[in-house]
Amino acid sequence: MNKLSKKSSIKAGLPPGTLIHVGKKKSENVKISVLDFNDEIFDAVEVKNEIDCSVYKDPTTVSWINVDGLHNIDLMRSLGDQFELHNLLLEDILNTNHRPAAEEYDDRIFLTLKMLGVSKSGKSIVSEQVSFVLGSDWLLSFQEKEGDLFDSVRNRLKEAKGNIRKNGADYLLYALVDTIVDNYFFVSEYFSEKIEAVEEVVLTGADHTTVHEIQRLKKLLIDFRKSISPLREAVSALQRDNSVLISQNTRRYLRDVYEHLIQVSDSIESHRDLLASIMDLYLSGESNKMNKTMQVLTIIATIFIPMTFVAGIYGMNFDHMPELHWEYGYHAAWGVMLVILVIMVIFFRRKRWL
Amino acid sequence: MNKLSKKSSIKAGLPPGTLIHVGKKKSENVKISVLDFNDEIFDAVEVKNEIDCSVYKDPTTVSWINVDGLHNIDLMRSLGDQFELHNLLLEDILNTNHRPAAEEYDDRIFLTLKMLGVSKSGKSIVSEQVSFVLGSDWLLSFQEKEGDLFDSVRNRLKEAKGNIRKNGADYLLYALVDTIVDNYFFVSEYFSEKIEAVEEVVLTGADHTTVHEIQRLKKLLIDFRKSISPLREAVSALQRDNSVLISQNTRRYLRDVYEHLIQVSDSIESHRDLLASIMDLYLSGESNKMNKTMQVLTIIATIFIPMTFVAGIYGMNFDHMPELHWEYGYHAAWGVMLVILVIMVIFFRRKRWL
Amino acid sequence: MNKLSKKSSIKAGLPPGTLIHVGKKKSENVKISVLDFNDEIFDAVEVKNEIDCSVYKDPTTVSWINVDGLHNIDLMRSLGDQFELHNLLLEDILNTNHRPAAEEYDDRIFLTLKMLGVSKSGKSIVSEQVSFVLGSDWLLSFQEKEGDLFDSVRNRLKEAKGNIRKNGADYLLYALVDTIVDNYFFVSEYFSEKIEAVEEVVLTGADHTTVHEIQRLKKLLIDFRKSISPLREAVSALQRDNSVLISQNTRRYLRDVYEHLIQVSDSIESHRDLLASIMDLYLSGESNKMNKTMQVLTIIATIFIPMTFVAGIYGMNFDHMPELHWEYGYHAAWGVMLVILVIMVIFFRRKRWL
Amino acid sequence: MNKLSKKSSIKAGLPPGTLIHVGKKKSENVKISVLDFNDEIFDAVEVKNEIDCSVYKDPTTVSWINVDGLHNIDLMRSLGDQFELHNLLLEDILNTNHRPAAEEYDDRIFLTLKMLGVSKSGKSIVSEQVSFVLGSDWLLSFQEKEGDLFDSVRNRLKEAKGNIRKNGADYLLYALVDTIVDNYFFVSEYFSEKIEAVEEVVLTGADHTTVHEIQRLKKLLIDFRKSISPLREAVSALQRDNSVLISQNTRRYLRDVYEHLIQVSDSIESHRDLLASIMDLYLSGESNKMNKTMQVLTIIATIFIPMTFVAGIYGMNFDHMPELHWEYGYHAAWGVMLVILVIMVIFFRRKRWL
Amino acid sequence: MNKLSKKSSIKAGLPPGTLIHVGKKKSENVKISVLDFNDEIFDAVEVKNEIDCSVYKDPTTVSWINVDGLHNIDLMRSLGDQFELHNLLLEDILNTNHRPAAEEYDDRIFLTLKMLGVSKSGKSIVSEQVSFVLGSDWLLSFQEKEGDLFDSVRNRLKEAKGNIRKNGADYLLYALVDTIVDNYFFVSEYFSEKIEAVEEVVLTGADHTTVHEIQRLKKLLIDFRKSISPLREAVSALQRDNSVLISQNTRRYLRDVYEHLIQVSDSIESHRDLLASIMDLYLSGESNKMNKTMQVLTIIATIFIPMTFVAGIYGMNFDHMPELHWEYGYHAAWGVMLVILVIMVIFFRRKRWL
Repeated sequence: MNKLSKKSSIKAGLPPGTLIHVGKKKSENVKISVLDFNDEIFDAVEVKNEIDCSVYKDPTTVSWINVDGLHNIDLMRSLGDQFELHNLLLEDILNTNHRPAAEEYDDRIFLTLKMLGVSKSGKSIVSEQVSFVLGSDWLLSFQEKEGDLFDSVRNRLKEAKGNIRKNGADYLLYALVDTIVDNYFFVSEYFSEKIEAVEEVVLTGADHTTVHEIQRLKKLLIDFRKSISPLREAVSALQRDNSVLISQNTRRYLRDVYEHLIQVSDSIESHRDLLASIMDLYLSGESNKMNKTMQVLTIIATIFIPMTFVAGIYGMNFDHMPELHWEYGYHAAWGVMLVILVIMVIFFRRKRWL
Repeated sequence: MNKLSKKSSIKAGLPPGTLIHVGKKKSENVKISVLDFNDEIFDAVEVKNEIDCSVYKDPTTVSWINVDGLHNIDLMRSLGDQFELHNLLLEDILNTNHRPAAEEYDDRIFLTLKMLGVSKSGKSIVSEQVSFVLGSDWLLSFQEKEGDLFDSVRNRLKEAKGNIRKNGADYLLYALVDTIVDNYFFVSEYFSEKIEAVEEVVLTGADHTTVHEIQRLKKLLIDFRKSISPLREAVSALQRDNSVLISQNTRRYLRDVYEHLIQVSDSIESHRDLLASIMDLYLSGESNKMNKTMQVLTIIATIFIPMTFVAGIYGMNFDHMPELHWEYGYHAAWGVMLVILVIMVIFFRRKRWL
Repeated sequence: MNKLSKKSSIKAGLPPGTLIHVGKKKSENVKISVLDFNDEIFDAVEVKNEIDCSVYKDPTTVSWINVDGLHNIDLMRSLGDQFELHNLLLEDILNTNHRPAAEEYDDRIFLTLKMLGVSKSGKSIVSEQVSFVLGSDWLLSFQEKEGDLFDSVRNRLKEAKGNIRKNGADYLLYALVDTIVDNYFFVSEYFSEKIEAVEEVVLTGADHTTVHEIQRLKKLLIDFRKSISPLREAVSALQRDNSVLISQNTRRYLRDVYEHLIQVSDSIESHRDLLASIMDLYLSGESNKMNKTMQVLTIIATIFIPMTFVAGIYGMNFDHMPELHWEYGYHAAWGVMLVILVIMVIFFRRKRWL
Repeated sequence: MNKLSKKSSIKAGLPPGTLIHVGKKKSENVKISVLDFNDEIFDAVEVKNEIDCSVYKDPTTVSWINVDGLHNIDLMRSLGDQFELHNLLLEDILNTNHRPAAEEYDDRIFLTLKMLGVSKSGKSIVSEQVSFVLGSDWLLSFQEKEGDLFDSVRNRLKEAKGNIRKNGADYLLYALVDTIVDNYFFVSEYFSEKIEAVEEVVLTGADHTTVHEIQRLKKLLIDFRKSISPLREAVSALQRDNSVLISQNTRRYLRDVYEHLIQVSDSIESHRDLLASIMDLYLSGESNKMNKTMQVLTIIATIFIPMTFVAGIYGMNFDHMPELHWEYGYHAAWGVMLVILVIMVIFFRRKRWL
Repeated sequence: MNKLSKKSSIKAGLPPGTLIHVGKKKSENVKISVLDFNDEIFDAVEVKNEIDCSVYKDPTTVSWINVDGLHNIDLMRSLGDQFELHNLLLEDILNTNHRPAAEEYDDRIFLTLKMLGVSKSGKSIVSEQVSFVLGSDWLLSFQEKEGDLFDSVRNRLKEAKGNIRKNGADYLLYALVDTIVDNYFFVSEYFSEKIEAVEEVVLTGADHTTVHEIQRLKKLLIDFRKSISPLREAVSALQRDNSVLISQNTRRYLRDVYEHLIQVSDSIESHRDLLASIMDLYLSGESNKMNKTMQVLTIIATIFIPMTFVAGIYGMNFDHMPELHWEYGYHAAWGVMLVILVIMVIFFRRKRWL
């Protein structure tokens, strides 16, 4: 949550459209890779820092220009000029705290979303912003750093698997988004496992660190939901809107993505419900524990305090205490104490504490 | 809940439309049974693994092709080809974690939902995915394993009960869905009984295992709701949309199914409310128990501690303690202790602890 | 709640439109009473088990055919035939667990709702299902057993009070529904009184049975709401839809009924809020009680335990304990104990426990 | 809450439109005051019990007929006849439990709402129902008793302040409603002050009566909200609907009233949130208090019980207890006890209880 | 919260459109500053108390007239006359408790919102109302006191940075609103930091003041939300409505502002969720602490009370107590006590309290 709202304020006071990279610089280098393909052609180029894209606007091939690393403002501006991108659009790409959203700017479609994964330590969700700009026969994608989930798509393109090379840039966009969304299921499964584990702990005997774990998961779920809900709306809008950039065929596929997002959303709500009820379970366990503790204390105190009182009586030093001189006084005292013991035991039995 | 979200991730990275069976393989064999009927004809065929369906597309009869077991990918692909099913549709049938949904693909209607029942142990809800594809005069149904609720429908078909043989494939679809939905009432009644039982326990005297039972029911309800709510929307869509595949007459019947689903949904909400208030009841019972325990301890301690103190006083060994030598010192000590006792008893009476 | 969902499952597997009486058989006899009237004529007939209704379809008079007792399936079927009722409609009438609803079937309007009242013991809400079928100049009503709230309407009809005889069957329907809805206010007042009483108890000093009462009221409210909310929507639909069966004039009156239902709904929400806050009040009272108990225990223990320790010291039997032989040793011991007492009292005063 | 739902049931069973005064009779006398004005004329008349209104329907002047006291049914019926009011409308005016609402009956607009104020004791909200009927050039207003907030409007009319005399009856209606709504701010401020006070008490040290105050405020807020929310919708409807009775100019002013109502609604929600969080604060304060109490008890008991045990040991009367005869035995015993004391103090320091 | 609802009541009873300054007078002086510009011209004027604005209505330049300080009613009226502002509009500007809102009055657009910032002490959110009136080529802005966030915009105007001088008054309005909204991120970050800090404290060991801090943040968030939510709707309305005053180009920028507001709203919801879960965490920590305290007490008491009882037995003074005279009686007594100790330790080990 913090990551999303933090440092969006550094832009306060600047004119709109000022290009500033908002967010941590996650990568040193900027890398541009271009895939240019159609049903027959497949061409891969990799460049650094500068690029002349005029050739990629050729309508006979689909061009996918992927940029890793956002901090080269000049490059961004140059791309913006070459593809006639609105200044606000460029600004949104650079703002890695942007909310997932889809917008149509003139005849480009802008889509930004989060690539999510479980961190290696298993303690947090790592999030990277990916933005897409879709033109008539080209697709720009922007990532914060190198290394992504898109290798499977690149392979499919290279080996012409499925019908990805027969379709346009809109289908490519779909394929990439689908890949990202499919990965949300890993995150969802991460929660399933962790919540199941934490429930197991609470059912068998939790200590206070369990609550910290519950709190951790709650926070992660809040973050997760903040990435999913707006994306769901965005994909729904893409699928329904009648932009010419997205073909009927691709819309059907986008609907599939939308269904997946709803399924992830459903899981998030279930997970939240579950966490809440696990917390209740924990608290009732604590209160149960307290009850048991108090019962132990009460049993011991209630049995021994009266008996100790009896012993105290006959420990007094009065000159005239006839019982002290009876022959069986000592045994009688024991008798009294045993009677007290029996009464107390019966009492606690009745209360089902023993 | 876990079952629904788990392992949907195994498809991450594959091209869309890749046919993979997602979920546990619940059955060894694949069984295909075909019922071909119209008002006059009734014909039943059962085959394994392979089928030539061209004959079933004959518009003079309605054909119901039921497939038990989903793991024969080749068969699925062949069926897909013969009935011209969209790849995404086939993919959805094979994904047994799919959310209940209705979709129109070209001129087929796809409906997927969960067949629910209480497990034999009474400890869980068993769920099996059933998918339907409705064409103009045929209906495909896909189940995860043999054995279903549809025997009553098969009987009606065989014996031409009601007007099921006089109607088209859409009415058959309705009849099957209706059968599944009617079974949801059993699940709903299961919750009614269990919740009533758990409330009874909480009212008369619960221990901590009761909370585990409440938690178990809460989780099952979350699962149940996840199967019902999307289905409600799906049936509502089917009933309202103006597909030519579903006749006006059948729409009215679908509305009846929709009303049933709303009734089940209402019960789920009531059950959730009830469980929440039973949990409150339990917690207030626990806090009441604690109060009682503390009162017992306090009464005993508060009565005996001062009396023991008096005894302690006269157990001291000072040379000069005049009371020790009084003739009635011992009786006076008893008197003091009795006064303390009386005061304390009056005090607790006033507080209504005794 | 249970009543509504229970035993709806007995119909699972039967063909739609199968006539089965779902629910308890509340009455032995079936009684049919017919009122046939217009501005000038008023005619009352009472029959058992069989009836020829053709005469009642005469458009010059309005006929109200009331059936008490639903278990005579043959009669139901015969009525269905005579008035051309859809099979699903008959089925809905017989299902006494049906959710309140209004539906238009061909050119009949079907309305089903619950007649509610406080049971004689004042411990529960008794509910009886009433269904109406409105035709152009006749109204069918179905009740589970004899004895209803409609005598006031019958009187108005007989004595031609108000303009009830001048209006059509739709106005009669309104008058009957209005009577039922007016009775909901009794139920609402029942809750007002009970909740006020329970709040009074909680404010002055509750015990654990109070929580049971709160729980009981919560459950009754859940049931009450389940009867009201769907009815509200149903009446709203009746009032807005443009069926020819309901005149403009009657629509205005239906709107009045709708407003009453909203008022009852509002009260239900308020009652729920109040019950929740009374529960909070109770729990905070419990926690307050516990605090007081603990303070009593702590005060007593904290004062006497140190003093008893001092007495214990001088009860030791060491040969060499100089204090024991001092002349004022005993008084000094008392002095020490009094100092402890004073310190403790000051301490507790500061904490405002005394 | 009770006031609203109570005794609405007395009308159960009566024909619709039966005129009965529902609610407490708050005033003995009925008073009718008429203001008749236009830009130039201003005329004030005051009558009792009977009135001939034909003259007030003159379209050249606006007439405001205000009735204080609702229990003169004959007068009501006569007014109803003279102004052609629908029976249901008259019934609604007489029902002082009516929900705030606006309705168009033929070419009259009916508006009913609550005039709210803080009672003199500051312990409750007093509520009086005011109803308006707006015709083309006249306005009827009905109040439960004499004495209202409208004197400022009367003054403005008399002294022709603002443009109130230049506008029609619709503007007059607005001016009166505006006056009532402005007074809601006093009620809102009452809550602000009380909630602030109660929060102060909870922050500095509350006792159990504070919870009663919180409960009282919660209940008043529930009542307050029940008066405001429906009115908000009613005013919104008035402002949007295209009745000819309300001019464009007045609609703009009504929108202003609507904004005020939203602001009051917002405050109510904030107040509810605040009360809930103050209750949480109180409960956490209680639990904190309990913790402190327990710590005091535990510290004292844990320090003195072991030391008393040591004293107990050497209070035993065995013949052979060598320690008793050592020269420094007594001092050694003290030493042991001091060691115990030091250990315990260190232990509690570590736990930060001391 | 108080600030918003307080003292809105001082207007009760006044005619609508009465100009009264509602709120604290935050500044002594009224200052008017005018910026008059187009692509080529830039002109800045500063005046006090009076102004002739006719010149600024010249359509060839855009004029921005900013008023600091609202208490000069005459000035306000004069501005109202010169720019033909509706009386209600002026009234709204003067009411500093007004809810953020956008309205179209004739052919002016009125927008009022809150300028928010963290107070210097970091203990509260300071809020100042800013109102805008947009005409065809002029913009009025009203602030409560001098000193604002607009210097960056003034600089951009002066130095003709970006395209602000090439656009109309609508774009200027956008630029100012954008500046204010950008500052909301500072407030949002303030909450992020404070909530993180408070969570840290609760995780490591909180005392009761932490709850006060949580309560403080909750209240601030309620205030924050009350400023943001209505503004979000207002900006959304501005962006969608088809007023001629706002160009297509500016609408796109307003949509950007809208997205920012949604992002802030999202954060507020997350922050509320987090605070709620931190409160849960705190409470479970308290209950854990209590459990630990009780366990310490129970362990000590349960071990020493029985042992002290044994010592008490042999402190009795009966004449006939054979054990006292055994040679190893004393050692045997110790033995018994050690056995008790061992049993208890084993018992607590089993319960995992030791």
